[in-house]
Amino acid sequence: MKPSNRQILIADLPKGKLALDHFKAVISPMPVPGETEVLLRIRYIVIEPAMRAWMLGPGYRAALTAGQVMAGAALAEVIESRSAGFEPGDLVYADDAGCQEYAALPAAKLRKLPHADPITHLASVYGVAGLTAYFGLLNVGNLKPGETVVVSAAAGAVGSLAGQIAKIQGCRVIGIAGGKAKCDLLTQEFGFDAAVDYKAGNVYQALLSATQGGIDVYFDNVGGAIFEAALFNMKARGRIVACGVVSMYDVDPTTFTSSVRGVPAWFISRRLTLRGFIVSDFYAERDKALADLKGWVDSSQLKVREDIVDGLENMPSALIGLLAGDNVGKRMIKVV
Amino acid sequence: MKPSNRQILIADLPKGKLALDHFKAVISPMPVPGETEVLLRIRYIVIEPAMRAWMLGPGYRAALTAGQVMAGAALAEVIESRSAGFEPGDLVYADDAGCQEYAALPAAKLRKLPHADPITHLASVYGVAGLTAYFGLLNVGNLKPGETVVVSAAAGAVGSLAGQIAKIQGCRVIGIAGGKAKCDLLTQEFGFDAAVDYKAGNVYQALLSATQGGIDVYFDNVGGAIFEAALFNMKARGRIVACGVVSMYDVDPTTFTSSVRGVPAWFISRRLTLRGFIVSDFYAERDKALADLKGWVDSSQLKVREDIVDGLENMPSALIGLLAGDNVGKRMIKVV
Repeated sequence: MKPSNRQILIADLPKGKLALDHFKAVISPMPVPGETEVLLRIRYIVIEPAMRAWMLGPGYRAALTAGQVMAGAALAEVIESRSAGFEPGDLVYADDAGCQEYAALPAAKLRKLPHADPITHLASVYGVAGLTAYFGLLNVGNLKPGETVVVSAAAGAVGSLAGQIAKIQGCRVIGIAGGKAKCDLLTQEFGFDAAVDYKAGNVYQALLSATQGGIDVYFDNVGGAIFEAALFNMKARGRIVACGVVSMYDVDPTTFTSSVRGVPAWFISRRLTLRGFIVSDFYAERDKALADLKGWVDSSQLKVREDIVDGLENMPSALIGLLAGDNVGKRMIKVV
Repeated sequence: MKPSNRQILIADLPKGKLALDHFKAVISPMPVPGETEVLLRIRYIVIEPAMRAWMLGPGYRAALTAGQVMAGAALAEVIESRSAGFEPGDLVYADDAGCQEYAALPAAKLRKLPHADPITHLASVYGVAGLTAYFGLLNVGNLKPGETVVVSAAAGAVGSLAGQIAKIQGCRVIGIAGGKAKCDLLTQEFGFDAAVDYKAGNVYQALLSATQGGIDVYFDNVGGAIFEAALFNMKARGRIVACGVVSMYDVDPTTFTSSVRGVPAWFISRRLTLRGFIVSDFYAERDKALADLKGWVDSSQLKVREDIVDGLENMPSALIGLLAGDNVGKRMIKVV
């Protein structure tokens, strides 16, 4: 008997907040790889806020629809190959793996991964999260030593790495996170100079006080009111790195009216730059970035927190929790 | 008897729309230049939307207050000098001239001007307007041949030059202006490829249709709803040059709630850059810019429209009219 393939489908696209009943677990037949395809056993599914954004409509990925396997990137192992480039046992990164146990994908869509210990680092610091933090600060933010850097969602996968990379570059770093526990983690574990608890009240005032003179580089993962509070604290010639807008993903876009004040007026009087990016824009420089990241991890300058949730069946709750900010560091689902 | 000095004072700072009674004409004694100062006869006062912004509070200039001479830059002639660097007859540009007939200013605050015919070109194409258009497109917008460029307030001083410079660079250029007469001027006189009349309805749809596939560089002089309409028409990797926000100057800031949607989310999915600038940020490159501008004017590639209003007493109405968009090209007051 062929083994079967457990999958998480999208039952319904959410109109407002994402809930468990927007997903459905099913058992499907094993996929069969076609010519030039590879059969993968999925080991770790990467949980990221953007998964909720993909449900809002087409962006840098095609829109998701009800009935299809929930999209997701994963670390996976090749178990059967019809491509000369891969053989059983190879570890690969698959953007289009989907939330399931097995996937048959074109070899051209896979990237072979080097060894890493633990292999989960390939999905955190050596994956999209680490590269996003790295390229966002260094290539988009043009970080300089001595500058004041503010990072939002600072206890998250990207934010915790971005803040530490800014420290390694010789910057003063303030993190924004929700709740005292996360704020303590920022200063005590990750070495941030200060932390602002956005749940404790006026973020604008807290940043004014914590930055001691304004922000040179704001690394934004959230958008909305926190973005605005940082915007009005920017120094002249400051740079805002637009990395993600987690505050805006889990809402009903037809009733969503939030918008940002001070655009573009504040950008002129302060000569600011705002730049949005997607990590793959900088993949030509990936090797150098990975070498730098590995050096910092190996020398313990960069601490990597991972938040590993066991079991494919927990993917929906893990994503819903992530959108509410209940993770610390990189969240992923251990499938096998 | 010493000649007297006619001046336009700020009678009251406006809370909402600027009106004539916010100004007061007075006759004061002739100013007397101190040591290292120069006495100037003011010839042309530059009228610019930013004059209204200076009344809103401190920005790149100190805030204006009731009772003081209305601020304004001017072309002026030296009539008495207590500085070795200037002598009577010199033509200078004075940022801090003020709206008056005579001013005594520190020599260090003046810039000697070369000859030009007509001399008003020193306040338009060879002045702040021309340099703003030049640096905004080339240094901030990183314009490339073949790109699609949209310019707002396109019949204005900066906009009409920016659009023409984009054409000279080999771009496809669409201008946004108010009313059929200005739109006709853009395409027939200034050589724009198309014009969008923002008074005629849906600017988003009109841009979607006129740009034939989106905007690479948006040169924004207005902010507000037109900014948003352009933002949602940007191509991937597009650049927005934030030059001015004329739609936001002549309003009561305490009741002003307008803000822009799509920030920062749209910047991420489209990988956009927004950058605000002030012309003086690029003055290190002024000589090259002026040489380029002069070459284009001399070869008739760049047409310069000026809107010269005669008489100091007409400064208030000329500024109020400018804010309502009644000028074409660079407006200035001929004092003498």
